[in-house]
Amino acid sequence: MFRPEIKVVDCTIRDGGLANDSHFSLETVRAVYQAVCASGVDYIELGYRNSKEMFDPAEFGPWRFCDEDMLRQATDGIDPRGTKLAVMQDAHKAVPEDVLPADESVVDMIRVATYVKDVDKAIRLAQNAAEKGYECTINIMSISHEGSPGLDEALQQIEAETAALAVYPVDSFGALYSEEVHFLVEKFQMYLKGREVGAHFHNNQQLAFANTIESIIRGANFVDGTLYGLGRAAGNCPLELLLGFLKNPKFNLVPILDVIANVILPLREHIEWGYHIPYMLTGILDQHPRDAMELMASADKDDFAGFYKRITDVPE
Amino acid sequence: MFRPEIKVVDCTIRDGGLANDSHFSLETVRAVYQAVCASGVDYIELGYRNSKEMFDPAEFGPWRFCDEDMLRQATDGIDPRGTKLAVMQDAHKAVPEDVLPADESVVDMIRVATYVKDVDKAIRLAQNAAEKGYECTINIMSISHEGSPGLDEALQQIEAETAALAVYPVDSFGALYSEEVHFLVEKFQMYLKGREVGAHFHNNQQLAFANTIESIIRGANFVDGTLYGLGRAAGNCPLELLLGFLKNPKFNLVPILDVIANVILPLREHIEWGYHIPYMLTGILDQHPRDAMELMASADKDDFAGFYKRITDVPE
Repeated sequence: MFRPEIKVVDCTIRDGGLANDSHFSLETVRAVYQAVCASGVDYIELGYRNSKEMFDPAEFGPWRFCDEDMLRQATDGIDPRGTKLAVMQDAHKAVPEDVLPADESVVDMIRVATYVKDVDKAIRLAQNAAEKGYECTINIMSISHEGSPGLDEALQQIEAETAALAVYPVDSFGALYSEEVHFLVEKFQMYLKGREVGAHFHNNQQLAFANTIESIIRGANFVDGTLYGLGRAAGNCPLELLLGFLKNPKFNLVPILDVIANVILPLREHIEWGYHIPYMLTGILDQHPRDAMELMASADKDDFAGFYKRITDVPE
Repeated sequence: MFRPEIKVVDCTIRDGGLANDSHFSLETVRAVYQAVCASGVDYIELGYRNSKEMFDPAEFGPWRFCDEDMLRQATDGIDPRGTKLAVMQDAHKAVPEDVLPADESVVDMIRVATYVKDVDKAIRLAQNAAEKGYECTINIMSISHEGSPGLDEALQQIEAETAALAVYPVDSFGALYSEEVHFLVEKFQMYLKGREVGAHFHNNQQLAFANTIESIIRGANFVDGTLYGLGRAAGNCPLELLLGFLKNPKFNLVPILDVIANVILPLREHIEWGYHIPYMLTGILDQHPRDAMELMASADKDDFAGFYKRITDVPE
């Protein structure tokens, strides 16, 4: 028996953009958009709407900024079949002025990513989006490093001051186990009365899909996935697994399988994502993957024991 | 706070042997044995003790039979540091006569793998092992295809007629979700009063580790893992993740990391295991991976949509 309230968000191009500085070709983005729309997924996030004063357009690709013109090039001529378009704004790296009124934009939803410390900036961006006519969510990053009372106060503030449809715990480090997921979903539900809880998990410990299921069991209704788990470092909850688990008959797995075979798997020539021991180690230690990413790019990439000793400070 | 009752079983060579007809070199087996012993893992399973009348020794490697002489070559000169040695017997492919009295053997534990339909054969082998002085377990394969009352009766019979230390549900197809895992652990506990429940999961849906955790939360105390998840098709619960999760201070991850880097990852030249779309599809459909393994060995290995349509009989 499926739960029709569950909304699935594909964030392949947005989260995957953290692995290649958002340098996807237009052809890739159009193929992903077409497949996700054909699969019946509720939302597709095509990148960030971040500030060109914070990111250099000479260095980062177009999906870091998602200019309206680029989004039109990505979507023109493709039937969305009900799939809504989302972009993400980083609370500390985006500005309200980059957002047009919704009726002049192809975007339907703006998701604001934030740390607890930046919640005032996040609320400003979320309210800007809501006032301009967009749906919006707030996604709280590095959730495994946030405790009481800071997180509790941020949730109270979001509840009191925003029109966010959903608020997400984001397991940026792939560190959470199921009992912690249950705890967080319940904490979010306690503070957020008129809105949904989201689920965004990373796969350092091969738990992104499992933790998404656990969130759904506890009532989360906005759930993120990416094609074949594409994303920074260990990547995300694989969208194909999520659609296999959800029983909503509106979903069609076939276009997802085709785009994985034809468009996503070939990206492995340029982007290395998925389960790797260095990402696993930062996950079990609840650390940012940056040291692991540095190791993966070095000649010592298979010196797992040396890396483990270094990041745990165990003397040799 | 850790649970000292939890016993970890490494079955890298045994389960991995299903992917290469048990053709590991002696050097590989010795390196795995040494690392697992040094890590503090409770048991290591070095292969099957199956019948040479059922398997042709000209076709299968020595770890399909685990002659005492081979096991001595694999272990001689290595300090077991408390790690016990296990072999597996298939209920329908092994005979009691191949098992020496325990005091003449290097083996400590015999695990009997069975389908529900073969439970009488399994009980015969388990009792043979117990009477000859071994610890033993019974591992019920293809558990996602077993329902009531057959499974219930098999568990009652095992409880009444054997000395098995632990009885495992084995998710051969990587099909189970957490709620089904909870159900099975509770069912096993209901029938098995004086023994432990085990956990052996496959990784078709990236849920092997998560389902192992869920089993532990519900009280399972015999848990299987393999190095880097090595095993047939999508493979198993990665031992390194399991040790990272368990808080027992006796475990040491460093030798495990070293043997993965130096011995296990190079095996990828000959064995392709892990998350792949064809294995994912048989997992979500609760099917044996054999069709997926055949596809993976063919020129059509990336025709995921065609394969999916074929195994679901959706007309094109």
